Amino acid sequence: MAFGTIATWRMAAEGLDQAYKMLESNQSAADSVEKLINEVEAYPYYKSVGYGGLPNEEGVVQMDAAFMNGDTLAQGSVAAIENVLHAVSVARSLSNEHFNSFRVGRGATKYAMKHGFKMTNMLTDRAKARWERRLAEIREKDLNPYDGHDTIGAITLDKSGSMAAATSTSGLFMKKDGRIGDSPLSGSGFYVDSEVGGAAATGLGEDIMKGCLSYEIVKLMERGKTPQQACDEAVYPFIEKLKKRYGKAGEISLVAMNNKGEWGVATNVEFTFCVANQNKEPRILMANLGKNSTTKIEPVTQEWLDAYEKRIHAPIN
Amino acid sequence: MAFGTIATWRMAAEGLDQAYKMLESNQSAADSVEKLINEVEAYPYYKSVGYGGLPNEEGVVQMDAAFMNGDTLAQGSVAAIENVLHAVSVARSLSNEHFNSFRVGRGATKYAMKHGFKMTNMLTDRAKARWERRLAEIREKDLNPYDGHDTIGAITLDKSGSMAAATSTSGLFMKKDGRIGDSPLSGSGFYVDSEVGGAAATGLGEDIMKGCLSYEIVKLMERGKTPQQACDEAVYPFIEKLKKRYGKAGEISLVAMNNKGEWGVATNVEFTFCVANQNKEPRILMANLGKNSTTKIEPVTQEWLDAYEKRIHAPIN
Repeated sequence: MAFGTIATWRMAAEGLDQAYKMLESNQSAADSVEKLINEVEAYPYYKSVGYGGLPNEEGVVQMDAAFMNGDTLAQGSVAAIENVLHAVSVARSLSNEHFNSFRVGRGATKYAMKHGFKMTNMLTDRAKARWERRLAEIREKDLNPYDGHDTIGAITLDKSGSMAAATSTSGLFMKKDGRIGDSPLSGSGFYVDSEVGGAAATGLGEDIMKGCLSYEIVKLMERGKTPQQACDEAVYPFIEKLKKRYGKAGEISLVAMNNKGEWGVATNVEFTFCVANQNKEPRILMANLGKNSTTKIEPVTQEWLDAYEKRIHAPIN
Repeated sequence: MAFGTIATWRMAAEGLDQAYKMLESNQSAADSVEKLINEVEAYPYYKSVGYGGLPNEEGVVQMDAAFMNGDTLAQGSVAAIENVLHAVSVARSLSNEHFNSFRVGRGATKYAMKHGFKMTNMLTDRAKARWERRLAEIREKDLNPYDGHDTIGAITLDKSGSMAAATSTSGLFMKKDGRIGDSPLSGSGFYVDSEVGGAAATGLGEDIMKGCLSYEIVKLMERGKTPQQACDEAVYPFIEKLKKRYGKAGEISLVAMNNKGEWGVATNVEFTFCVANQNKEPRILMANLGKNSTTKIEPVTQEWLDAYEKRIHAPIN
């Protein structure tokens, strides 16, 4: 029986292992995807999601997250939410509402408080140190302040054929107060339909939303494309279109899985991701832009993994 | 030479007349669509957009708006912004930013303040009276508090072939603090590509975003459908899908125009709209769901128009 999960970046690995075990033991796509994202949100050394996520230019961690049920198409989203440990769980709770299912800013935070979600100061000492260092660098070197916008986005397929999608991010490092990206936006940051498949995005949200890339990938799968074909055909022509029409294109990476557990990715940067299905246990893979608008996928090396561990735990100075 | 504009609801009429004159005299799609929306935002008797818009459950008017340039695909959006007279103009200003182009809540309001946009208390005495009456009704009659969510959404095509799309709304009457709908969301509330056409939505945002309907219509036009075919084929099957999968579907209406000035609409309610192009001067038309998933379009009667005028100016008691 088909089941599986795919998620963006190396940081998904520990959560994806857990989600895989849940799916294997007949737990739901919705519970598994939430668990996957919760693991990433709680780990302080991942600096673009949840606790330990990098703050906005005012030093405040504002988070965006979404949850979508592929059976019902129900969605919940939060954006610019503050002080909540598990933004994706708030989004999932909102997906049960027919009205008011997308809440932003203080309204989103109030919803989380009223509904008993765990509240905490999301700014770790490490994140604060990075923010202070960055402020100094920008002042001294006249740098473009914006980099770092790695969203955790994941798709799950359970043994009953149900699918779910979810995202969570602290967004662009040094963003302006109230800036939101693609992660909470239906069709841009995520989309899933259990009768077809799902997709999720990471990268520069401002550019991803110009192309509604997650929705586009799902529609291509609906018209018979494999997830890899759908990713390649949605993402690479759009990046060329954006360069031609808008003059430039930011970093864009997407992952997709269909309701058979087949998967695909596309990216214009070095992009790690994690995947597992009924045929193969969880792996961390590396994608790069290949020849002729295709995606080159390789196993990630032990050397890369060691360097990653070292990097995320390195002292901030 | 082709040019034209289409916009949601009777309330667009005065603004669309002005946009039409601008387009006729070679002004840009972007300037024309902003002017169209600004007229609606400033008119105090339209109770779902801008000044005079109905407040959220706390009595605060929070607005959502977006602007998209069909040449470059650049977008700007604001959501849950407060005290700004012309939310769509703030969105247009944000569309010039590559980063931070979608701002919500206090961050959106701060951007408007810093950039010199006109700030004012958007709660009129009439809107306040309606809010107070509604609170009492809900308390006394145990009513579902939510109704009223008429977004102004518009598409423009200028004589140089450029297109633009924009939306503005005060959202669902009695919404929760920070609730946002589809209007500021790319692909759901709006989408436009000058090489194809554009679409904009009004209705229950929570359901429209489940289907990314504006993007879907533009993609259908790209694959050769007329705007009317694209509207019918995107909207009616989605509404059936939503009823089957989600169990219900809210009010959904869309307008579309392609880059030849041809237009289409689809709706599951009685839906007025305004349209004009190189062949026909501005008209107010009425759409209803027709037979076999098509749209029935008729001129709006003088009787209907008279009743509308009377209704929007009626005393609140």
